[in-house]
Amino acid sequence: MTDYTLYYWPVPFRGQFVRAVLAHVGATWNELGFNDINAERRKSPSEQIVPHMGPPVLIDHANDFAVSQTAAILLYLGRKHELLPNDAEREALTVKIIADTDDVLYEMTRYNGAQMWTPAEWQAYLPRLKRWMVVFEQTGLRHGLSARSGTLLGTDAPSVADFTATVLWGTMTDKFPSLRPLLDETAPSLAALCDRIAALPEQKKLRIKSDTDYGDAWCAGQIEASLRAVV
Amino acid sequence: MTDYTLYYWPVPFRGQFVRAVLAHVGATWNELGFNDINAERRKSPSEQIVPHMGPPVLIDHANDFAVSQTAAILLYLGRKHELLPNDAEREALTVKIIADTDDVLYEMTRYNGAQMWTPAEWQAYLPRLKRWMVVFEQTGLRHGLSARSGTLLGTDAPSVADFTATVLWGTMTDKFPSLRPLLDETAPSLAALCDRIAALPEQKKLRIKSDTDYGDAWCAGQIEASLRAVV
Repeated sequence: MTDYTLYYWPVPFRGQFVRAVLAHVGATWNELGFNDINAERRKSPSEQIVPHMGPPVLIDHANDFAVSQTAAILLYLGRKHELLPNDAEREALTVKIIADTDDVLYEMTRYNGAQMWTPAEWQAYLPRLKRWMVVFEQTGLRHGLSARSGTLLGTDAPSVADFTATVLWGTMTDKFPSLRPLLDETAPSLAALCDRIAALPEQKKLRIKSDTDYGDAWCAGQIEASLRAVV
Repeated sequence: MTDYTLYYWPVPFRGQFVRAVLAHVGATWNELGFNDINAERRKSPSEQIVPHMGPPVLIDHANDFAVSQTAAILLYLGRKHELLPNDAEREALTVKIIADTDDVLYEMTRYNGAQMWTPAEWQAYLPRLKRWMVVFEQTGLRHGLSARSGTLLGTDAPSVADFTATVLWGTMTDKFPSLRPLLDETAPSLAALCDRIAALPEQKKLRIKSDTDYGDAWCAGQIEASLRAVV
């Protein structure tokens, strides 16, 4: 019997945050196909496994519990598998990192594809993307990241905050390699952390499987095409 | 000495979630003016009280701690003032409610004003807004909301989940009263919960103060004008 079932489209994007944590804790999980995810998504909320608007949804079979929303899934897994800080301040900063991540994902996809990128709009956005990198870098630096004695990011035991920050910036720059020099230049400690986390054996295995399953896709759809055309 | 300082624009929108919780726990707090918030927002992240892209930011003076992002602030206050459920499942569902709320706020403002509403787009959006109401209603109903013995929403002691759900739907329908019949019809238990929470003495006081300070504004700006034109 598998530990978890994950409902998420066959692309990295929001699903990869959950997969990274599941891989790290050595959990087994099943992923459903596009049709099953879509069928669940279109049900009346009263009939859904958890009332939700869209994936990701995670089922924890051991606890017979389902929850939607990336932030909620990450907090749940973090609590269960002891990947969260044990004080209220660093726990809140972990949630801040997750919420910042969600904002970056929305902005990079122009709100899940509500608009398409033009070269001029992408150029106008670049300073803000750079500022987001600095926000993450500085959040880490204030908690010891650069000295490799991090207490929030880059701790001895990788945490939900580490997986969130590194899946965001690492996966994005893996899939859009021309953005990697910008990350190296703007947020060198964060870039180094992305590499350290990506080098963990379970993360390497996940990367190979994801590359096989999803190819170059990041968020997919017209918005990815629009993003690729300007990046 | 005041307990907290809140950086948020002088409108309800995201700030009202924080204000509702602060009012409930009887905390004292100071709010800064537009110029101070903007000055802090424009600083280099390395010089900000907490690296952030925009408000809300909360400072807890007792702990000399600052954090940005509504979700992080609500979790922090919930932990500190014991307004969170004590099991991982309901805690995760609380985070789900906060994340769902954030999605609704983004959608209602067309992603913080990235686009403006047209009557046709608003009509096309209404079924989705209604579905969001059902998602909240059903999330509550599965945990006893209708029987007034809620274990997630509508518990004996109002929680972060209650304040989040009721500030979202209650404040929105206070400021756009023509949406209230839709809420009553679509999500009657949620609508009743909004009224019960709004009737708490501290929430009534906050409502009077906010109405005095902000008038009819909800999110303000061009996007509010665009929303008022279609609703």
